[in-house]
Amino acid sequence: MHHSQTMFQNRWLRVDVDVVELPNGRLYDYTVIREKKHGVAVIALNAAGQVLLQQEYRYPVAQVIWQVPGGLIDDGEMPLAAAQRELREETGHEAEHWCYLGALWDNPALEDMQIHLFLAQPAFAAGPPQWDEEEWIQWQWQSWSWLQAAIRTGEIKERVILAAVGLLWAHGDLPAGD
Amino acid sequence: MHHSQTMFQNRWLRVDVDVVELPNGRLYDYTVIREKKHGVAVIALNAAGQVLLQQEYRYPVAQVIWQVPGGLIDDGEMPLAAAQRELREETGHEAEHWCYLGALWDNPALEDMQIHLFLAQPAFAAGPPQWDEEEWIQWQWQSWSWLQAAIRTGEIKERVILAAVGLLWAHGDLPAGD
Repeated sequence: MHHSQTMFQNRWLRVDVDVVELPNGRLYDYTVIREKKHGVAVIALNAAGQVLLQQEYRYPVAQVIWQVPGGLIDDGEMPLAAAQRELREETGHEAEHWCYLGALWDNPALEDMQIHLFLAQPAFAAGPPQWDEEEWIQWQWQSWSWLQAAIRTGEIKERVILAAVGLLWAHGDLPAGD
Repeated sequence: MHHSQTMFQNRWLRVDVDVVELPNGRLYDYTVIREKKHGVAVIALNAAGQVLLQQEYRYPVAQVIWQVPGGLIDDGEMPLAAAQRELREETGHEAEHWCYLGALWDNPALEDMQIHLFLAQPAFAAGPPQWDEEEWIQWQWQSWSWLQAAIRTGEIKERVILAAVGLLWAHGDLPAGD
């Protein structure tokens, strides 16, 4: 990198324009979004094998969307602890067993953001949720056949849910349906 | 929305801070990244059912990563045409049949970016690639068992590849392995 200029930053992210040298020797202005924190997300299954899905209004896409529990990792916090905290805060649930499925990049052509994904089972209700000021989150258990249909019809577009299916498939943990 | 201020923009994206009213009546500063263009990506299979994967250096994550062909939709271009163009430009391939698998949101808590995903098969070599100035892309055919192992070990973290597995599963098109 020859030069980096921070064009904007706040508590969430920083936008840099870095001047980088291409393999042909030419200089290129690369716009990079550097998030302040990485993320976690949780695929929580109950004893019947159903998956915990949430509905939340997401302002950037201007609609209520399906998603899984998750959020940003606090400074100094381990990803597993963040995943357990987010499941508890957002849905009031805890789980007996936690398994690390892997990480995904949100958009490696633009950002450095990683999401660490965990499988938590069986999950059980442990108390009331504790939402942040800007959170209003509904949750419910859904079957894998419901999930499959919702992805097929486009009702679910959230990259973490879709990527979770890919990670579960890779680990041999993808349910056959119900 | 009460007020919106554009904090930065260039040819790729715009960063806005929008003042929105929460359900409890409080005002909240929402940071939103609005990309200028949406994206497309292609799962291209050859006659043997292998998948076309690319390796490209991605500056934001500072490493060579595995990905699938794809890019941004030009102004006025249809997503299918963009997918066909990107497959041709990045790898020199065309395909007989194209099927729309669905869309994914990159990060609906921060951005409005959507990626439209297509299944293209069988794909065949049709000429040399035509890279943009900043592109140096290697590609190769990989088996689904190789892909499964590469996701499991974390060698593949790209959200589009992981999400493509989820979309193929939802459509009943996920290969059983080879």
